[in-house]
Amino acid sequence: MARIKLDKISTRAPEHLDKDKTKADTANLLSELDELQNRMYAESKHSVLVILQGMDASGKDGTIRKVFGTMNPQGVAVSSFKTPTPEELAHDFLWRIHKQVPQKGMIKIFNRSHYEDILVTRVHKWCNDAQAKERMRAINDFENLLTTHNHTHILKFYLHISKEEQKKRLEERISNREKQWKYNDQDLTESKLWAIYRKMYEDCFTHCNEVPWIITPADQNWYKEHVVAKALHSLLKGLNMQYPGIKK
Amino acid sequence: MARIKLDKISTRAPEHLDKDKTKADTANLLSELDELQNRMYAESKHSVLVILQGMDASGKDGTIRKVFGTMNPQGVAVSSFKTPTPEELAHDFLWRIHKQVPQKGMIKIFNRSHYEDILVTRVHKWCNDAQAKERMRAINDFENLLTTHNHTHILKFYLHISKEEQKKRLEERISNREKQWKYNDQDLTESKLWAIYRKMYEDCFTHCNEVPWIITPADQNWYKEHVVAKALHSLLKGLNMQYPGIKK
Repeated sequence: MARIKLDKISTRAPEHLDKDKTKADTANLLSELDELQNRMYAESKHSVLVILQGMDASGKDGTIRKVFGTMNPQGVAVSSFKTPTPEELAHDFLWRIHKQVPQKGMIKIFNRSHYEDILVTRVHKWCNDAQAKERMRAINDFENLLTTHNHTHILKFYLHISKEEQKKRLEERISNREKQWKYNDQDLTESKLWAIYRKMYEDCFTHCNEVPWIITPADQNWYKEHVVAKALHSLLKGLNMQYPGIKK
Repeated sequence: MARIKLDKISTRAPEHLDKDKTKADTANLLSELDELQNRMYAESKHSVLVILQGMDASGKDGTIRKVFGTMNPQGVAVSSFKTPTPEELAHDFLWRIHKQVPQKGMIKIFNRSHYEDILVTRVHKWCNDAQAKERMRAINDFENLLTTHNHTHILKFYLHISKEEQKKRLEERISNREKQWKYNDQDLTESKLWAIYRKMYEDCFTHCNEVPWIITPADQNWYKEHVVAKALHSLLKGLNMQYPGIKK
């Protein structure tokens, strides 16, 4: 496919879009999602894997809270992938990921994911281009396994923020007492690697797009939440799920 | 302690209680809980284990949905314990339970729990009185381990319904198309064992009460939800949690 160029894609909602109307739409979608999720849980045939990627402060935590925060916790779970442990490093890079995929009936949210193994690792040169290529192939095979063999529907969101918006949010983490716990010295160091991170993300989009990426303009939370809710809603709506009858 | 007699405890809200006012109170508690939970997650010092037990159709699923359904899924997770797998049975009865306890910062809800190992197993005589006594001792030690060594605060709810209310709800599972998936032939068989289940529950309350049980009148969902929300709120409020500052 043609290479996606992040610089050419707006980080903001389309100009004409009415904010209040969109927020009302999102609220309706969330309300319907509650019922669709219950149906999926009851039917236990499909599962959904939501992958959230994006630069630091791109709004991954907020997306989880706002879009998935009103669903039944019995049907939704979150896995956050941080620096791998020694045990995890002693396995292939998909080992810790595979353990966390959703079982039938569930929505699993990955807060960061196996994509970090071709992002942060490449930026810091812990993984060379040849290794990255092998990993991309393995990722495609892995996503294909989940999709084909367990009715797992994968939604991959790249939360697309501008450098200016990131700067503003990182500064707020320092000045706002209730957000300081989220601040990490590394955030500023990583922020300086902005251009190379963007290039590595574009590589992901190009080479791991069999399950397509949804590039989500994320400078405005209301629009980001709308895009995520809408994609999830379209997916679930399209599955034509039914409540099962009495077990025989 | 004196034996708790379930027959002496009402399954309904106190007579004088105003339903609408209580529901409004609950909504306020839930809104404050959202903030308290975020604080606990940020501080990552304490964790909460909520144990839900009760007869079939006593409203465990509904409690999870209504009381925990508005919280940030990143800080709440549910573990449901069903019939043990062969691998689980090849270990001690607390092995599968221990794997699911909350890490610091998290609220974990157990939909059924290790108490089934002295409930359903005793009712069906898969476990004799001497074994049950050993298990009760192990459960007390285990709960003490979590409480003392990892700041895990345990809330144990027995959802207390009347036999009439259970019957009504089981019948609804058969007649309501959207609830049929919850129905299980065994439910009716188990329901006939009502008296012996009650006795086994009373044994739990008597012998495993170092972390006290909260007997929750559960015939009316609005009151049940209020009791659970209030207990959780009091607990979290009392922990005097603070947002941590910038990491050094």
